Amino acid sequence: MSNKKPTMKDVAREAGVALGTVSKVFNGIAVGKAYRDRVEAAAAQLGYSVDNYARGLRSGRTSTVAMIVPGLDHSFFSSLANAVSYELLQRDYRLMLVTTQFDPHAESRCVQMVRQNKVDGIIGLTYTSDLRISGDLPYVSIDRCISPNIPCVSSDNFSGGSMAAEKLISLGCTKLLFLRTGSRVIGETDKRGAGFTAACELAGTESFSLRVNDEDGIEAIYAFLDDHIRNGRLEYDGIFCNTDRLAFFVRRYLEQRGIRVPEDVQMIGYDGTRHFFTGDYVCSTIVQPVQQMAETAVRILLNEEQYRLSALVCLPVSYAAGGTTREPAEKGEGLINYGK
Amino acid sequence: MSNKKPTMKDVAREAGVALGTVSKVFNGIAVGKAYRDRVEAAAAQLGYSVDNYARGLRSGRTSTVAMIVPGLDHSFFSSLANAVSYELLQRDYRLMLVTTQFDPHAESRCVQMVRQNKVDGIIGLTYTSDLRISGDLPYVSIDRCISPNIPCVSSDNFSGGSMAAEKLISLGCTKLLFLRTGSRVIGETDKRGAGFTAACELAGTESFSLRVNDEDGIEAIYAFLDDHIRNGRLEYDGIFCNTDRLAFFVRRYLEQRGIRVPEDVQMIGYDGTRHFFTGDYVCSTIVQPVQQMAETAVRILLNEEQYRLSALVCLPVSYAAGGTTREPAEKGEGLINYGK
Repeated sequence: MSNKKPTMKDVAREAGVALGTVSKVFNGIAVGKAYRDRVEAAAAQLGYSVDNYARGLRSGRTSTVAMIVPGLDHSFFSSLANAVSYELLQRDYRLMLVTTQFDPHAESRCVQMVRQNKVDGIIGLTYTSDLRISGDLPYVSIDRCISPNIPCVSSDNFSGGSMAAEKLISLGCTKLLFLRTGSRVIGETDKRGAGFTAACELAGTESFSLRVNDEDGIEAIYAFLDDHIRNGRLEYDGIFCNTDRLAFFVRRYLEQRGIRVPEDVQMIGYDGTRHFFTGDYVCSTIVQPVQQMAETAVRILLNEEQYRLSALVCLPVSYAAGGTTREPAEKGEGLINYGK
Repeated sequence: MSNKKPTMKDVAREAGVALGTVSKVFNGIAVGKAYRDRVEAAAAQLGYSVDNYARGLRSGRTSTVAMIVPGLDHSFFSSLANAVSYELLQRDYRLMLVTTQFDPHAESRCVQMVRQNKVDGIIGLTYTSDLRISGDLPYVSIDRCISPNIPCVSSDNFSGGSMAAEKLISLGCTKLLFLRTGSRVIGETDKRGAGFTAACELAGTESFSLRVNDEDGIEAIYAFLDDHIRNGRLEYDGIFCNTDRLAFFVRRYLEQRGIRVPEDVQMIGYDGTRHFFTGDYVCSTIVQPVQQMAETAVRILLNEEQYRLSALVCLPVSYAAGGTTREPAEKGEGLINYGK
C-alpha cells in the first residue's frame, strides 16, 4: 500500500463505509455527520486528497479513458470491462467502450477513432498484429505486448498453465492434452500452453498440444478428439483448455460420446468463469484476478503506479476446483443481491 | 424497410458482403473493385447515402452516445451493451458506457455526468425512481417508462409472462408459482408476473406470486420454498422465474433438496441466456430479442424512426425449451469461432 496512492476505495475500506458514501463526502453531498467524520479521518490517515485526480495527468484532460475489447459476449471480456468501469468511476473518469467484434480492420480504426476523440488514455485488448500505437497517448495493453514502451497487464499465464499441469498430474493423470483455440496473433495467453508443456516435461508426464486458430474452427479440435477415441475411451486422461469456454464445449462433446468428466477424463479450463458471474465455477479452472487486472491497468494508465515504462505485469492466478476434476468442487457465492 | 432509413448493415445485406467491406468503401479505404461496385449498387438501390449520418442530429454533435447500465456482470446487460455497441459502430458513433453498480446515487450522477460530457444522446437502463430527465437531450429508456415524453424500449414482458404460463399448463402443470427478485422501482419487467398471473386466471389454473425486493434477498425465496416442501415434494409443479439467473439458483436450491427438475417441477426463466452466449440455453426460457432491442433504441435515439414521441415499444419475445421443462431441449449454436 505504501507506494500506491490511496484511492476512494482505500478510504472506504479504512473508514468502513460504502464507496458511495465516500463519493458523496468528496462531492459535497449531504451524509450523516458520523459518516463524514469517519471518511475524513480515513482520508487524513491515508494521505488521500481529491487532488489525486489531477496528478500525473496531461493538461487538457477529458477525464475519459477508452477501452477496446473484442466484444462483451464473452464473460472474461465483460467481467474485465465491468471492473475497469468500476475503477474509472471511483476516480471520476468516464469509460468510452469500443467493441471490435474481432475485426482487425475495426481495431485499427477504433484506435484512430478514440485518438481523435481526445481521450486521456486507452486500455486495449486487441488482436491486430500490426497495430501501430504512437507514444503520445497513454496506452495500456491487456494480454499482449505490443511494443517495448507500451505497458502490458495480464494474468500470470505461464504459471497458470504450469499449475493446471501439476494439478492434473497430482490427481493421477498420466497422459495429458492441451487444447487451444484463438487468434493467429501471438500474445500473453499463449504462455498458458507453454507453461503447461514445461510442467509436463519437468514431471516426465507425456503430453500433447493441439493449437487451432479461430479460422480453422472448433471442428478441428472435435476431429482430433474423434481420432483419439478408441473403444469408447479417450487416449488422454487429463485435458487443459486455454479458456473455460473451450473447456465447456469440449466437455459437452466428450459427454455426447459417452466419455464421462471427471470419471474418465479430468479437465481444467482458464478464466475462473462462474455461472451467472456469482454462482459456482463452470469447470475446474485457473482463476484470473480480473478486478486486480483492471485496477492495475487503470493505475498504470493514470500514472498512479511507478512502473509506467516497459513493464509486463503478470498478476498471480489461483486454482479452483469446479467439478471437472476428481475432488470436491468449491462453492460459488450464490445469488448476490443487487441494490443492497 | 420502406419507412426506415437504410443503414450500413442493410447495404451489406443487400450487397452480400461483410459489414467491414461496406465501411471500407464509405471510408475511402481500398477494397477490390468488384466489391466496391456491389456496395455502391446496393447503396443506390436502397437510397443509402453517407449523409444519413448527419440527418436528424443536432448541430454540434459529438457522434457519441452514452449508455447507462447497472453493470456488465449480468449476461442480459452485457449482451445488450454489446449489441448497442455494434449498432453504434456501424453508424460511426462511439459508445460512452457507464455502469452504476445498482447504486441510485450513482445513476443520477451518471446522467448528470454524461450530460456535461456533451454526448448526442443517452440510452439508459436505470432503477432510480426519481430520475429527472429533461427534454433537451435525446434519451431512450430501456425496460422502464420514465415519463410520457421519453421513449422506452423493452421486450413484450406481458406476453412473455403469459407465454410461460400457457407453456407450463400445456405441459401438464396444475399448480403454478411465479418468483421474482429485483428492484423496488416498478418497471416494464414487472409485467412478466402480471402476464403470467393473467394467463393462469384465464386458464383457471391455480397460481401464486412471490415478489421479493433485492434488499430482502434471495433468502426470502428459499424460505418460501422450504415452507412449501412437504415429504420431499414441492407443492407447486410449475415455476416461472422473472430471470434465467433466478431460475438457475432456484433450480440448484431445489435439486439440493432432492426435488428434480423437470421431472418433479418444470421451470421457465426469462432472458434467453445461453451458456457462454452461444451454447445451449441455461434453462427453458422466454427469449428477449436483444439485437432488435438495441437496434430499435439506437434508431429511435438517432431519429431514424418516426415514433420518436411518447412511444413504449414492446418487441416480440419467443419461447425456447432449455431442459427445465418436459420436452426436448433446443440446441444452441455451439462454439462460434471468432475472427472468421
